[in-house]
Amino acid sequence: MIKAGVVGATGYTGLELLRLLVKHPQATIHVVTSRAESGKPVADIFPGLRGEIDLCFSEHETSLLKDCDIVFFATPNATAMHQVPALLQAGLKIIDLSADFRLQDAQLWSRWYGQTHAAEELLDQAVYGLPELHREKIAKASLVANPGCYPTAVILALIPALEAGIIDPQSIIADAKSGISGAGRKAELHNNFCEASENFKAYAVPGHRHLPEICQALNTLAKKTVSLTFVPHLVPMVRGIHATVYAQLLQKKIDIQSLYEKRYKDEPFIDVMPMGSHPDTRSVRGSNYCRLAAHTSRESNTLVLLSVIDNLTKGAAGQAIQNMNIMFGLDETAGLTFPPLSP
Amino acid sequence: MIKAGVVGATGYTGLELLRLLVKHPQATIHVVTSRAESGKPVADIFPGLRGEIDLCFSEHETSLLKDCDIVFFATPNATAMHQVPALLQAGLKIIDLSADFRLQDAQLWSRWYGQTHAAEELLDQAVYGLPELHREKIAKASLVANPGCYPTAVILALIPALEAGIIDPQSIIADAKSGISGAGRKAELHNNFCEASENFKAYAVPGHRHLPEICQALNTLAKKTVSLTFVPHLVPMVRGIHATVYAQLLQKKIDIQSLYEKRYKDEPFIDVMPMGSHPDTRSVRGSNYCRLAAHTSRESNTLVLLSVIDNLTKGAAGQAIQNMNIMFGLDETAGLTFPPLSP
Amino acid sequence: MIKAGVVGATGYTGLELLRLLVKHPQATIHVVTSRAESGKPVADIFPGLRGEIDLCFSEHETSLLKDCDIVFFATPNATAMHQVPALLQAGLKIIDLSADFRLQDAQLWSRWYGQTHAAEELLDQAVYGLPELHREKIAKASLVANPGCYPTAVILALIPALEAGIIDPQSIIADAKSGISGAGRKAELHNNFCEASENFKAYAVPGHRHLPEICQALNTLAKKTVSLTFVPHLVPMVRGIHATVYAQLLQKKIDIQSLYEKRYKDEPFIDVMPMGSHPDTRSVRGSNYCRLAAHTSRESNTLVLLSVIDNLTKGAAGQAIQNMNIMFGLDETAGLTFPPLSP
Amino acid sequence: MIKAGVVGATGYTGLELLRLLVKHPQATIHVVTSRAESGKPVADIFPGLRGEIDLCFSEHETSLLKDCDIVFFATPNATAMHQVPALLQAGLKIIDLSADFRLQDAQLWSRWYGQTHAAEELLDQAVYGLPELHREKIAKASLVANPGCYPTAVILALIPALEAGIIDPQSIIADAKSGISGAGRKAELHNNFCEASENFKAYAVPGHRHLPEICQALNTLAKKTVSLTFVPHLVPMVRGIHATVYAQLLQKKIDIQSLYEKRYKDEPFIDVMPMGSHPDTRSVRGSNYCRLAAHTSRESNTLVLLSVIDNLTKGAAGQAIQNMNIMFGLDETAGLTFPPLSP
Repeated sequence: MIKAGVVGATGYTGLELLRLLVKHPQATIHVVTSRAESGKPVADIFPGLRGEIDLCFSEHETSLLKDCDIVFFATPNATAMHQVPALLQAGLKIIDLSADFRLQDAQLWSRWYGQTHAAEELLDQAVYGLPELHREKIAKASLVANPGCYPTAVILALIPALEAGIIDPQSIIADAKSGISGAGRKAELHNNFCEASENFKAYAVPGHRHLPEICQALNTLAKKTVSLTFVPHLVPMVRGIHATVYAQLLQKKIDIQSLYEKRYKDEPFIDVMPMGSHPDTRSVRGSNYCRLAAHTSRESNTLVLLSVIDNLTKGAAGQAIQNMNIMFGLDETAGLTFPPLSP
Repeated sequence: MIKAGVVGATGYTGLELLRLLVKHPQATIHVVTSRAESGKPVADIFPGLRGEIDLCFSEHETSLLKDCDIVFFATPNATAMHQVPALLQAGLKIIDLSADFRLQDAQLWSRWYGQTHAAEELLDQAVYGLPELHREKIAKASLVANPGCYPTAVILALIPALEAGIIDPQSIIADAKSGISGAGRKAELHNNFCEASENFKAYAVPGHRHLPEICQALNTLAKKTVSLTFVPHLVPMVRGIHATVYAQLLQKKIDIQSLYEKRYKDEPFIDVMPMGSHPDTRSVRGSNYCRLAAHTSRESNTLVLLSVIDNLTKGAAGQAIQNMNIMFGLDETAGLTFPPLSP
Repeated sequence: MIKAGVVGATGYTGLELLRLLVKHPQATIHVVTSRAESGKPVADIFPGLRGEIDLCFSEHETSLLKDCDIVFFATPNATAMHQVPALLQAGLKIIDLSADFRLQDAQLWSRWYGQTHAAEELLDQAVYGLPELHREKIAKASLVANPGCYPTAVILALIPALEAGIIDPQSIIADAKSGISGAGRKAELHNNFCEASENFKAYAVPGHRHLPEICQALNTLAKKTVSLTFVPHLVPMVRGIHATVYAQLLQKKIDIQSLYEKRYKDEPFIDVMPMGSHPDTRSVRGSNYCRLAAHTSRESNTLVLLSVIDNLTKGAAGQAIQNMNIMFGLDETAGLTFPPLSP
Repeated sequence: MIKAGVVGATGYTGLELLRLLVKHPQATIHVVTSRAESGKPVADIFPGLRGEIDLCFSEHETSLLKDCDIVFFATPNATAMHQVPALLQAGLKIIDLSADFRLQDAQLWSRWYGQTHAAEELLDQAVYGLPELHREKIAKASLVANPGCYPTAVILALIPALEAGIIDPQSIIADAKSGISGAGRKAELHNNFCEASENFKAYAVPGHRHLPEICQALNTLAKKTVSLTFVPHLVPMVRGIHATVYAQLLQKKIDIQSLYEKRYKDEPFIDVMPMGSHPDTRSVRGSNYCRLAAHTSRESNTLVLLSVIDNLTKGAAGQAIQNMNIMFGLDETAGLTFPPLSP
């Protein structure tokens, strides 16, 4: 059994990692850290895990981490970069679910995250953990930067179109909508039930930190600098991301449905739905699937892509488990083969 | 007091008309019709109106309608067109909240609504009831076609930009999100709480009936045929529409904030919010306001407009009352001067 | 016009007071205080009030308060008791929406609120502001203790039965359910949307501060010490309280429906619904109504009372306005005559 | 592998059975019937099952049913009783999730379900499928009547107290709250999102069909006729039941916490929480757990029991799988060992 550690397990991403790891057939949870709750039983904080996990939260700095085969960082940004170097040197594998190792350009990282990067030397070896793009590299990686939730939904929608060169990379608009759990397990007024319920709004229109992350991936796919307008919105629901992506078509006659089905036919977690479909977020709730549909507007010559994921699963912890499976040579779907919870 | 009739008052639009009319200082409800509930007290169907309204529902065909000064049609599409001609001839004023008189082109109407128009001859005299565009015509009209909810949110977002000619009319994308009440008060599986709650999806991507209605208004504003991609989505909330509208800027240096503030400075129900704002739907819940914010993405040269309304108020019944006020020479805000309900 | 001050207006109760006061025909808002937001425009914190209110928040200690005719305290518990004495001496009328003056027994207050009462000498003159019980006293009062939300719903359900002596006062169980806004406008993890949504739970079963408040009123009505089991629960909705109250019937043959209708027939805000009704919280949302239904279970000889209010309106700010109206000799319904918002 | 059939699989209970069966280690889905959707792929109706199930819906009367080892009826009431006799004769095992075989008294069934029972002769052999009461009988049964959702939550709360004789069986009040999925997957106006959301109400106070079912079980436990007041309520959430059960304590000094822990210490799905706990429904969402807490109110000598289940899992399909496991001698937890989905 793979011995796994989870650093910062009191957030929703950490909780989702625990939910998945307690039933993983080839991994076991060795240590779970939390500064705030150190010493308390995990099941006291998360009563849904009563009977599933007997551990207490440890301090972040615990030497128990070094006994692990792999450590997941589910910490706020700018935390993992301080602890990862020592663990890598100790021979562990690391999957960082925060943004610390996602951008390959340390300057760009500094600009968006407001501080100097503390482990710039590791950016080269960090692999961006989107299996649908980098499966081989992930298999050999020691340090995987797990993608953000919005980037996962948006990039997966665009891979086939950009690889095939059928859209104008200067025309991309990603109108993305996320459930509130994307904002984290925090005591914040704007996420209070009474503020977020029966309400809908855009946020961070002038610039969201996922913008450079998405652009980095799209630039590589397009082999040039793309132009992306990215507007995130908050939906009064707990889980789910729906990205509606627009781009101008360069070719009129292409069979887009076939293009998408072909590109993803061997992907275990990508479901290209039948023509005319409208995927909904609950069809992926609690699962690691991304469901996609492609529509074209003939009059306006616009490609409209609909992409749904569960932000905590394929958008975070599920994808991290998928990456772990690849890194350890397991069946890529191990521990991830349950259907979504619906209704 | 103006004697008002409401035809088809068992839907959410009808209920919202009743909520507004019972407290209107210069109007009184004379007759309320419903085929399904005829004979029953209105307050039995809508317990929230106990103590507010003593009427029973009448048959649709009641002669009581002819005693009214104005009749509101809150009926399904293709109903009003059969009854309106006789009422107009009897000298009444009509505000139709359905789609029957919104499109000036009967052929286009037929194509989208799947039947021949029964009162084609009235399309010329029907005025599209968006006061911010057609206030003078509304004042003189006998027949007002009350705009759809999505069109209200999208058109109000675009009026200043199109009038000023600062955007490319071939580049417009309207990504719109609506609360479930927009689907009407109906027993339909897909609107069951368990289907709609904790869920988000796009719908009608291949073509929504509000598309030609929006285009008709935008074509006039742009003085040419615009190209519009319109994608509606369902939000798990009761009330509210949020339209996120994208267009390519033709001019870089324009002061968009001033342009919007100037265009709308005398409008009682349009609130251009300060630069950088993100209007949320609950800030207009139950009120007749439309709140707007304009953002520009420098890199992509894209104008991003955020527009929120309550779909049942400014998007339907509130705007209908506003039109009634204009048609009868009342203060345009009469009966509409209450703040939104928040939280 | 009555000049009103609102102390602590950044909570939901304060916001609801502002919503009601901006449209009150005989009152005007003179000063609004908040320690945290002092100096900022009220409409910046509550965008729904843009165009409705031009004031900025003042410091709590402002001398502007003394220019008022009446001051509402919408502060956390144990705040008003420090400021009220000086304002009373200055000749103002006070309505305290917190719990400071609700219990007549200072010892009891100390036990439940964990500190010594700072204005014990005022408890005698404070009137418990439930108009349906104390209308005459309220009319003459300078200091009104506005009832808690749960007590309002529970006491109104029981008044007719206890006054008529038809139930065993040792057998009362109040199973109460509240929307999340009852917990206040605070950054607290357990009220985060993701914690409270799609969830239901009881809380404070060992003892809730509203228990002694309810008992105090019931004891007076029963003319003896009642026995009450009170269990509050949290409902994933914003507004509304539903109290389900159980008691053993002492008399079998009484016409309970008539008893309730007779007791409340002149009450402007109490709606005794027809036999067999199940009032729902949305039928009072945003309004000052309490709707009641009485059922009896023949087999078990149990009276089952269903009582719904909007916790922010009849359960807080609306009842406070009703009390103000009574204190100033206005029509008791002034500023409170709008229908609930539904759907 | 056990070959399972599901009759009436288009409801929420049926869907939940499919979700559980597709991953059951020792069972496989052989046939899925639906009159309305016959011929259509299951995954077309439930997109969340794309990739999980390849079957199409069959007619109800299909001979495929006879090839099964076990058939689950997830049909409306009064359906199974017509089909079960033939299947039993063919040697199959049956678990009926409807109410057809829950009441042992055919007269009582007739009174509550408004028709004559069509298979009265089977009532004797039908076992009420609450494993915590009837595990041995279930193991030998051919026909199991799977308990209703409310009865499961209420009976599990009361078993230890009634078995120990510590409460007055004439004093039981069950105030129960259910998510909307309990009302089924139906197109009904009162379950429309806009009717059910942001709302709370009691229903069926004069008499709910689960009342005689609960009483039947409680009578047996108490060895006398109990008196039960049962009031169900609707919570604006999809899944979950919270029963708050009140009863008068006959003995003051009993250690209730120990009593409950002892009674349930070997039960795999019953979690007696620590003293003072308030179980919430999301701690069991999607899982087969029932979590319980017992409180006592000293003043009123009342026992307050809090009991939560997922109405679709332990309250329906999960308990059915548990019963199947027992009937076939499998590990009772097979296919049910996943944690709840939270948040």
